[in-house]
Amino acid sequence: MSSSDIVLGPNQYGKAEVRVVRVNRETPVHTLVDLNVSSMLRGDFTECYTSGDNTRVIATDTQKNTVYAFAKEHGITTPEQFLLLLGQHFTGQAEVSGGRWSAESYPWERIRVPGPDGTLTEHEHSFVKSKQEIRTAALTIADGVEHLVGGFSDLTVLKTTGSEFSGYPKDRYTTLPETDDRVMATDITARWLFAAGAEGQAAAGAVDFDAVYARVKQIVLEQFALVHSLSLQQTLYAAGEAVLGAIEEIEDIRFVMPNNHHYVVDLSPFGLENPNEVFQAGDRPYGLMNASVTRRGAPARPQAWEWIAGFC
Amino acid sequence: MSSSDIVLGPNQYGKAEVRVVRVNRETPVHTLVDLNVSSMLRGDFTECYTSGDNTRVIATDTQKNTVYAFAKEHGITTPEQFLLLLGQHFTGQAEVSGGRWSAESYPWERIRVPGPDGTLTEHEHSFVKSKQEIRTAALTIADGVEHLVGGFSDLTVLKTTGSEFSGYPKDRYTTLPETDDRVMATDITARWLFAAGAEGQAAAGAVDFDAVYARVKQIVLEQFALVHSLSLQQTLYAAGEAVLGAIEEIEDIRFVMPNNHHYVVDLSPFGLENPNEVFQAGDRPYGLMNASVTRRGAPARPQAWEWIAGFC
Amino acid sequence: MSSSDIVLGPNQYGKAEVRVVRVNRETPVHTLVDLNVSSMLRGDFTECYTSGDNTRVIATDTQKNTVYAFAKEHGITTPEQFLLLLGQHFTGQAEVSGGRWSAESYPWERIRVPGPDGTLTEHEHSFVKSKQEIRTAALTIADGVEHLVGGFSDLTVLKTTGSEFSGYPKDRYTTLPETDDRVMATDITARWLFAAGAEGQAAAGAVDFDAVYARVKQIVLEQFALVHSLSLQQTLYAAGEAVLGAIEEIEDIRFVMPNNHHYVVDLSPFGLENPNEVFQAGDRPYGLMNASVTRRGAPARPQAWEWIAGFC
Amino acid sequence: MSSSDIVLGPNQYGKAEVRVVRVNRETPVHTLVDLNVSSMLRGDFTECYTSGDNTRVIATDTQKNTVYAFAKEHGITTPEQFLLLLGQHFTGQAEVSGGRWSAESYPWERIRVPGPDGTLTEHEHSFVKSKQEIRTAALTIADGVEHLVGGFSDLTVLKTTGSEFSGYPKDRYTTLPETDDRVMATDITARWLFAAGAEGQAAAGAVDFDAVYARVKQIVLEQFALVHSLSLQQTLYAAGEAVLGAIEEIEDIRFVMPNNHHYVVDLSPFGLENPNEVFQAGDRPYGLMNASVTRRGAPARPQAWEWIAGFC
Repeated sequence: MSSSDIVLGPNQYGKAEVRVVRVNRETPVHTLVDLNVSSMLRGDFTECYTSGDNTRVIATDTQKNTVYAFAKEHGITTPEQFLLLLGQHFTGQAEVSGGRWSAESYPWERIRVPGPDGTLTEHEHSFVKSKQEIRTAALTIADGVEHLVGGFSDLTVLKTTGSEFSGYPKDRYTTLPETDDRVMATDITARWLFAAGAEGQAAAGAVDFDAVYARVKQIVLEQFALVHSLSLQQTLYAAGEAVLGAIEEIEDIRFVMPNNHHYVVDLSPFGLENPNEVFQAGDRPYGLMNASVTRRGAPARPQAWEWIAGFC
Repeated sequence: MSSSDIVLGPNQYGKAEVRVVRVNRETPVHTLVDLNVSSMLRGDFTECYTSGDNTRVIATDTQKNTVYAFAKEHGITTPEQFLLLLGQHFTGQAEVSGGRWSAESYPWERIRVPGPDGTLTEHEHSFVKSKQEIRTAALTIADGVEHLVGGFSDLTVLKTTGSEFSGYPKDRYTTLPETDDRVMATDITARWLFAAGAEGQAAAGAVDFDAVYARVKQIVLEQFALVHSLSLQQTLYAAGEAVLGAIEEIEDIRFVMPNNHHYVVDLSPFGLENPNEVFQAGDRPYGLMNASVTRRGAPARPQAWEWIAGFC
Repeated sequence: MSSSDIVLGPNQYGKAEVRVVRVNRETPVHTLVDLNVSSMLRGDFTECYTSGDNTRVIATDTQKNTVYAFAKEHGITTPEQFLLLLGQHFTGQAEVSGGRWSAESYPWERIRVPGPDGTLTEHEHSFVKSKQEIRTAALTIADGVEHLVGGFSDLTVLKTTGSEFSGYPKDRYTTLPETDDRVMATDITARWLFAAGAEGQAAAGAVDFDAVYARVKQIVLEQFALVHSLSLQQTLYAAGEAVLGAIEEIEDIRFVMPNNHHYVVDLSPFGLENPNEVFQAGDRPYGLMNASVTRRGAPARPQAWEWIAGFC
Repeated sequence: MSSSDIVLGPNQYGKAEVRVVRVNRETPVHTLVDLNVSSMLRGDFTECYTSGDNTRVIATDTQKNTVYAFAKEHGITTPEQFLLLLGQHFTGQAEVSGGRWSAESYPWERIRVPGPDGTLTEHEHSFVKSKQEIRTAALTIADGVEHLVGGFSDLTVLKTTGSEFSGYPKDRYTTLPETDDRVMATDITARWLFAAGAEGQAAAGAVDFDAVYARVKQIVLEQFALVHSLSLQQTLYAAGEAVLGAIEEIEDIRFVMPNNHHYVVDLSPFGLENPNEVFQAGDRPYGLMNASVTRRGAPARPQAWEWIAGFC
């Protein structure tokens, strides 16, 4: 086979995990935003791959520098806004036709210290990291269209009752007993796609990304708590439906939810009953749910979700 | 908004990370295969999501049991073959229209012990884990078509010279100096798509997956070593081109390659020169390359690569 | 050399990382304790090592079973109390002269859901994991004496000002500029040794381990916030001194505190000033502080802190 | 209580995880040493803790610089030699009375490429990382005495037969069945203390640390393979005894060995037998062995093994 029968397929390149902390010191009450930013560029970079010609290759080091310079020049209000700035900057370069910009955002809380009267009040410049979940955002620009996705990773929840699992098919390899009362636990990862146009609204200040974030998190927690669950899938869907019902800027929400199994320990060899009181928290294997909840008739936007050469 | 305007989108579910070790003890020279298997099913599971009706939901516990039972009934020759068995089994169930089955495979070497004459020989049943890379495989079945992908993760390589980077665009944010001699290092992750029909050939014994694996690994290492590199992209492409040139069963190969930066330490404050002898190995950020090398005119097979609700 | 000149030195064995979740369902308001327990036994196990005679070796599987059975029989109030139960049980066996029992404890918060009037109230049986820090406890029994240590790991804090570092020695290898305003950040790991007798008081209900835990955490956070810091060491010491000053049951408190460097990014190549507004959060290397704050004249209790064959 | 009753206890500070890669380019056949170095100093630093006086505090940044400068000035032959250089340098400073210097060392192999006649030969400057285990070294200097420890972490081994476990005590909580044939698997971590004076011999070139390392690794692997094991403890002891029997420069060797349980999967519900052919590799819990093998009458050298405020 001649090598001319072999060609470059989809590709992107960039700088990953640029750790930027932006402090706002304009008043004595400081604020901070703590991000881990990645920038991946797409365009016609064929010559670089086939002959090592870097004429069109914006150095990944330059991408990193841009992140830091923009943090100073423009500040960082929300991860989503910052990614929109970066994406619009890079796609304004002749070499770049599109790309993907993403960020993890680490929430911090103010440390509370005793005030003059002994009551706890928030300190002006001291913070403790809240690790309950990691906030995420990703912007894909493809064919001139922006696809903006918010989200969070690994919000870990557990309920000690209010969960069942039964009625599933039985085959030769089925041994699981049915149950009408089990522990249900998961690490909720969610990603939500903003409706087309939300980016424009964002630019106009009409979308408050922080407020959307807080509402989605609260709604998901509530649904987990309140739904009497016949399957983890049902809980997932209820959470998605409630989010879409409440927040019109969101068009599609996708979840990855492992089923963090808690096994009822068999204490009968020791002459003890165990009415769902003592559990072994399992590591592997685990169930895994993966689903989208979306608006009927929403346009297909596969580019919002795909990785060019993506695989885990 | 009425909730009937909200619908279930793409979805899959299953059991992740089933750790199965299969020992073959038929002769005193034991062999073992050590896998981490995941099984994700697709089909019409809408009722489970919307009303908790599990009638069509094959329990993830049943999927786990099937992995272990098949390991005994059929043995495990290669990860690819084992996934084909699982995929065909599950898509033979009425409830299942497709899915994704994947595995990590951990290589082990025999421990060498002194024989009667003192020379080292391989022990019959004692092994040491080779952690140089992790082998991977994934089978997607969609619309009745099988897409089989082999691969490996995190093969870490470094060359102390024979790498350059220059000729890139300079803008306001560019500070990186050009270099004609640098350390180049990366963790190579590769995934290769077997040509349509290779599954059938595999069933007929015409594809030796272990041999393909060994050849790809050796070719990729050779290209990394031998190519005088003008960019990491060029090395990536050369590796892909060489693999496709040598192995006709492979139709497309994709790489994820971070640029593990090694910074030349500035020793001038201490009155010392540093002609590429002392480096700081960096953690974050890192460059990241992501590209496919494919055969001209190969059919588009997006389902081979996509995750239904995939995101990292 | 004859092998009789080679002997067994210090040793211990046991079961590590027994994951036990204990739910109390006595009322509709459920509570849970989520532990990762390890049990390591010491005694005369020489014959097991030298000849494989297991006559005195309580199986590690039995140790695991005991953890689960005790969780049911005795419940779990605090990690410290549970370890005291385990340690006293095992040292009551003829084969066991001492050992080390330890636990990680994962805090959970109740999910808050809207009540009838819309205000958020705590749900009875649904929880979200608080990952701010991990609580730890360890009990060593040696020579008939109990040494009980409470603690936490990785409480991550950051202050955006109120930290200096200057006045250090300058030698040929010193390049660090002095600063009177920097970001200070660390992951606080603390371990506190309860005064001898506190175990007895605990048995009598005189020590409230949960209350001690909450007070130490709050005091450490407050000192981090309030001390204008000339070095991370000074902050560490102030925290220890405040804890010992407030909680008489604690005899010694030890900290491991990395200095999570936040580097001021040089934006001058881009024509920008950076008055401590934009930082790169560094990974490696990091400063590391390691110190004990103790009461004058407290008895030396090295067994509280040592690992028999301990090394990291 | 007055704060004068509270005092500073044992303490140390320094820079952790300095990543240094040293390339030797003197001939076209390059070599490299890849280390992760930590430097912890001890001395009278009380004033820094109690009042923030840094007069005696050699900056951790200076320690990092020294690592890089020494890598250039002195080169790096072995991790042990490099730590001896660092330790002697720092204890030569007036402020420093002792400390602990440690390193991880990452082994690399040469990539093999086809030579002119097609046989594979080692490339001159291209390497692939061998991740089978991590080499370690630690030097403690206390009271003017050097304690040098070599080692490795996480050498993962497994044998498919040749391992038993029976004869252990049975109590109320014992359910484990006895077995005369099981899989035995562990991640071997070993640390060996060089005999007093070996440092001096090393300076004189009489100890070849690389050769010692290779011999210990091979002996430990051989013993794991060849000993028919009645308990993991017996295998551990045999390995230690063989090392001390063969290498006179080593005075004490300590192991941490988890028992990586491989559970025989119960396939009887599926009408299948499982004569030790199909295993579930477990995650948690795991057995854990921790023991020293030493020479009779060797001097007690606790400072070699202790961490001043050490805890994991």
